[in-house]
Amino acid sequence: MAGGSGALLKDEVDIVIPTIRSLDFLEMWRPFFQPYHLIIIQDGDPSKIIKVPEGFDYEFYNRNDIDRILGPKASCISFLEAACRCFAFLISKKKYIFTIDDDCFVAKDPSGKEINVIEQHLKNLLTPSTPHFFNTLYDPYREGADFVRGYPFSLREGSPTAVSHGLWLNIPDYDAPTQLVKPRERNTRYVDAVVTIPKKALYPMCSMNLAFDRELIGPAMYFGIFGHGQPIGRYDDMFAGWCSKVICDHLGFGVKTGLPYLWHSKASNPFINLKKEYNGIFWQEEAIPFFQSVILPKDCTTAQLCYLELAKQVKDKLSKIDPYFSKLADAMVTWIEAWEEFNPAPAGEEDVDFAKLSIAKAAGK
Amino acid sequence: MAGGSGALLKDEVDIVIPTIRSLDFLEMWRPFFQPYHLIIIQDGDPSKIIKVPEGFDYEFYNRNDIDRILGPKASCISFLEAACRCFAFLISKKKYIFTIDDDCFVAKDPSGKEINVIEQHLKNLLTPSTPHFFNTLYDPYREGADFVRGYPFSLREGSPTAVSHGLWLNIPDYDAPTQLVKPRERNTRYVDAVVTIPKKALYPMCSMNLAFDRELIGPAMYFGIFGHGQPIGRYDDMFAGWCSKVICDHLGFGVKTGLPYLWHSKASNPFINLKKEYNGIFWQEEAIPFFQSVILPKDCTTAQLCYLELAKQVKDKLSKIDPYFSKLADAMVTWIEAWEEFNPAPAGEEDVDFAKLSIAKAAGK
Repeated sequence: MAGGSGALLKDEVDIVIPTIRSLDFLEMWRPFFQPYHLIIIQDGDPSKIIKVPEGFDYEFYNRNDIDRILGPKASCISFLEAACRCFAFLISKKKYIFTIDDDCFVAKDPSGKEINVIEQHLKNLLTPSTPHFFNTLYDPYREGADFVRGYPFSLREGSPTAVSHGLWLNIPDYDAPTQLVKPRERNTRYVDAVVTIPKKALYPMCSMNLAFDRELIGPAMYFGIFGHGQPIGRYDDMFAGWCSKVICDHLGFGVKTGLPYLWHSKASNPFINLKKEYNGIFWQEEAIPFFQSVILPKDCTTAQLCYLELAKQVKDKLSKIDPYFSKLADAMVTWIEAWEEFNPAPAGEEDVDFAKLSIAKAAGK
Repeated sequence: MAGGSGALLKDEVDIVIPTIRSLDFLEMWRPFFQPYHLIIIQDGDPSKIIKVPEGFDYEFYNRNDIDRILGPKASCISFLEAACRCFAFLISKKKYIFTIDDDCFVAKDPSGKEINVIEQHLKNLLTPSTPHFFNTLYDPYREGADFVRGYPFSLREGSPTAVSHGLWLNIPDYDAPTQLVKPRERNTRYVDAVVTIPKKALYPMCSMNLAFDRELIGPAMYFGIFGHGQPIGRYDDMFAGWCSKVICDHLGFGVKTGLPYLWHSKASNPFINLKKEYNGIFWQEEAIPFFQSVILPKDCTTAQLCYLELAKQVKDKLSKIDPYFSKLADAMVTWIEAWEEFNPAPAGEEDVDFAKLSIAKAAGK
């Protein structure tokens, strides 16, 4: 089912690509991506021309477009950071998002076959997850696998899968200190598994190779304010991972990690990375225990409501680390305001009433 | 390092084998098991002679031996059920236990090399676990792997590993209903991974291919009263898995699952299995939520104390399902009494004072 008109759910997926350089990497993905729609977000100087290879169906946005479309709410979208990709999550009209970095290429499985990442991500998302009990033979919904002896029968229907986190062969996704210490380490291990990350466990979500169900968890896939003008970078996807996992746990959705692999071609500069990550390395030591212990009230029944509550708690509990977290919490609220604007509730359902909620940004300022 | 005098930690491991039939399977394991000491427990009629192939260093116990050695406390050891293997855990003097079923053979990895199960289990046990945060590149302590970006640095020392749960190629460990529905399913997927099961997540622990650190978690590796004379079978390892995971979580120890694989040669009879499992299929629907929500008090600082507390809670909370759980709770206390007898606390440390504890069996009878 590699590409062509037989591409799986071709009208229900947007491929989101943030880029600062060229899009030549798309040539290698042509058989897999051409049937789908792309949303390309230019990360950085909007006067620089980025050429999209011919034959792809795409929308393209630069910083000027984002400012024009979102107006004052554009402040919640990062500049000079791949975090800008979340603008595409906001304006997409599709059910599924697949996002990839522009230094990632098609990987091969151990039999030498090129891996169709989108197909595997969709398989992960279209089958349930098992967050309430660990299955030792991994994803029980894969062909040739099932629930093992002792798995409660009442849990075998599983939970809706909201996130599919894929992995990387060649250059692993290491932080700056590990890059510095192990400059030559390459990931050569192809692990033929998909695992549901159990409820209450957090994980480092990397956006290099990530898919999710926008309808289930889109509002929680906010990549924060990082990069230019901020005291921290390279934590955009981590932040989105903490928030989305906590909200998936609360709403009863599952998160899978493992297959599919792609080929990550080059390591970013560890010295630059260290500068960006520096504060995050400290701050995550307090932020992660906070996210591990967050409790969302029962009346948070949608991802939007959960997210606004989380914004409030981030402001209350993390601002003491650094005033940055207060700004971040405000941006989280702006993000949901923008989400509501571009994704109005279907007829018969109510939009979030910001006036009614005590989480208005001004209150905390 | 396959076998021979170079065998890893050969004086610190006991291999525990329950058997009802013949031990011919040992021939295939000779290069791997011969350097180690075996404890063989005869499961069933003690008048039946079981021949141990020549050249192995072993102890052998049948039911008469167990009755003689444990006296009245022998009531806590199951009869006509592989659960009898836990007698060996009790009397072993070694730090590590590896236990295996007699219908399991040496498997090969994808390169065709025979897998040294003991070596891999020991690697799992000798390196830390990561129960507090999920690492997406699996066991970060394996060669060629590490912690990924976003993994908190304060958690990279990891936790002591108490349990290593191995998997099975060929016949998967399915319950009777799944066996009946999928009689031809075989596990052919070799997943090259070791995963720490996160804190607070339970899993179905199978004893076909299991290793653990007796010093850390031995007292919680009780296989209960199942099989002959009991209303339930084939839940001995599941029960030990629930108890040991809850106690590992409380004491800060880790549980790993994944490699090593062995070759499980034949499926047991699904009709007989259904009869044994029948009650368990119902009861686990209440027992598992109980174990998922168990809280152990802070003063439970050893596996023994945790286990006695758990026995008390099992009696309090699960006896309403069936009087069987009250008997099981009593047997749990007997087990710890026997454990203390055979594993006295080192000089300077105190034994459990049963008289002081309010969990004496009589109290609940």
